[in-house]
Amino acid sequence: MDEMQFLDSVYELAVSYLEDERPLVDYQNFESLEKITDTNLQHGPMPYEQILLDIQHYLKYCVKTNQSGFMNPLWGGISTVALASELITSLTNTSMYTYELAPIGTVIEKSIISKMLGYVGYPDGAGTFTTGGSNGNMLGMLCARLKHNPMGMHTGYDNRNLVALVSEESHYSVVMAGNVIGIGKENIISIKSDPSGRMRADALAEEIQHLKAEGKDVFCVIATSGTTVKGSFDPLKELAEVCFRENIWLHVDAAWGGSALLSSKHTHLMDGVELADSVCWDAHKMMGIPLICSTFLVKDESILAKVCNHTKSAHYLFQSE
Amino acid sequence: MDEMQFLDSVYELAVSYLEDERPLVDYQNFESLEKITDTNLQHGPMPYEQILLDIQHYLKYCVKTNQSGFMNPLWGGISTVALASELITSLTNTSMYTYELAPIGTVIEKSIISKMLGYVGYPDGAGTFTTGGSNGNMLGMLCARLKHNPMGMHTGYDNRNLVALVSEESHYSVVMAGNVIGIGKENIISIKSDPSGRMRADALAEEIQHLKAEGKDVFCVIATSGTTVKGSFDPLKELAEVCFRENIWLHVDAAWGGSALLSSKHTHLMDGVELADSVCWDAHKMMGIPLICSTFLVKDESILAKVCNHTKSAHYLFQSE
Repeated sequence: MDEMQFLDSVYELAVSYLEDERPLVDYQNFESLEKITDTNLQHGPMPYEQILLDIQHYLKYCVKTNQSGFMNPLWGGISTVALASELITSLTNTSMYTYELAPIGTVIEKSIISKMLGYVGYPDGAGTFTTGGSNGNMLGMLCARLKHNPMGMHTGYDNRNLVALVSEESHYSVVMAGNVIGIGKENIISIKSDPSGRMRADALAEEIQHLKAEGKDVFCVIATSGTTVKGSFDPLKELAEVCFRENIWLHVDAAWGGSALLSSKHTHLMDGVELADSVCWDAHKMMGIPLICSTFLVKDESILAKVCNHTKSAHYLFQSE
Repeated sequence: MDEMQFLDSVYELAVSYLEDERPLVDYQNFESLEKITDTNLQHGPMPYEQILLDIQHYLKYCVKTNQSGFMNPLWGGISTVALASELITSLTNTSMYTYELAPIGTVIEKSIISKMLGYVGYPDGAGTFTTGGSNGNMLGMLCARLKHNPMGMHTGYDNRNLVALVSEESHYSVVMAGNVIGIGKENIISIKSDPSGRMRADALAEEIQHLKAEGKDVFCVIATSGTTVKGSFDPLKELAEVCFRENIWLHVDAAWGGSALLSSKHTHLMDGVELADSVCWDAHKMMGIPLICSTFLVKDESILAKVCNHTKSAHYLFQSE
């Protein structure tokens, strides 16, 4: 079997998998599955025939997330066009860090980001594809912190006083981002939600006053459009009013719910997103694109450019002609 | 044309691309390329025939990174087996966040990480696949900071005094990580290299004394195994001795050079990596795997578990049976 025959066989396996109607999973616990899986990695090459058997084994024991009705982790299904695009993306293997490496990729990225900026109402904004919604939420907090204290990027931040506010229904990635950027978990403070799981704007305003009186420095509010457990959409307009009055950055975690913007029936759930400062929005959730396809969008282009500015340290990427 | 005929046609395009011997790139500047590219995104579905034309356009104008000899960004080439695996990965679309979602994926991840831990000499270590070498370097700095001050994760860090040391030949991702975790670019301090681009252990020891006298708090040294411009390998053993004496975390950025461990001829370049505390190592660079395939490996398993511990905030991921 040569290289191309091998690839053909893998493609055939992929097609059978797509058409297969097997149950969601043949569940085995870790110990059993490890026992029946050949994880012995040899140093040299392995025959193609053996690799095909390994792929069949993988396909037998993976969770069939393209099964109709599967939406357990808030993503699922499969779009054949998106799958084909993933094949082309892997085939043409590139990085987006310079135009030289990804000319046509850059044209596509700019046009998609611009389209999405139109949906969220940031006509002069900017954006980027990210490694996931968690990364987008972290970028929102980084932009907020930079706006709050532009010098900290150079001198370092004293984070002990910085506070970010989220609803009690928010996603754990916000706490994770708080840990990464060094604010500390205790400085990610939860705001009460109403019975349907929406952050209460009055409770937000109250907590800000309370924290101010304590000498804390609230630099960011993170609203959620489509919470993980209840699917609630925070009242963005009301939250934006509070943030505007207090001069606090408003980031919207719309990783899951952002795609409501594409529905004439449900777009009202996102009303007020145009008043926020930044948004993360995953195409791999409600749009059915394979993981990971996630964006971060920001109203003020200059902030994102500053947060991502390390080009002086990478002179070799930009040689003069 | 139906869905499966479309997928077959895309596969045929992929095979032709693999076999094609066209030049590296038909270079067009952004304005020209934008003019000849149809970036008009309509709201409804597009005919498969049109999508095939768009894919052909993409394949015509992308950089042919699988061309033999292409290694410009320190990655290139293509492995047919790895390409096939990317197809299977996209097809079976899952996330590694729980065993339930990725049972067979977890078995594979554990076995590969364990193999790589063996190569770097961390028999009781831990590791994870990451979103890239930059992310791995950031994880190294997060582990270092947590070890240095375990309470900061809860209360927030005063970063203004924290200093990380790197060689003057190090990768810009270290400065970026310094920005993200909030240390500030000025607190990433460069250590002189010798003429071949290797960090000088004597200069490192001297700078640490100097910074201590200034009241600065050095929490991390980042060595580079395979620098971006000169391909130099820092003298890990000598640097580890200094770090051990001063009780400072040593992280090794082996994103590019880590794969020297697989060569009996060049493995000596990585001598001393077993004395470091953590390493990042990219399989998408010298191993020819498509982007992104990157790992972070750490000697003390408990630190990584602590850095990544946000499970209390994600109770819905782990329901009792």
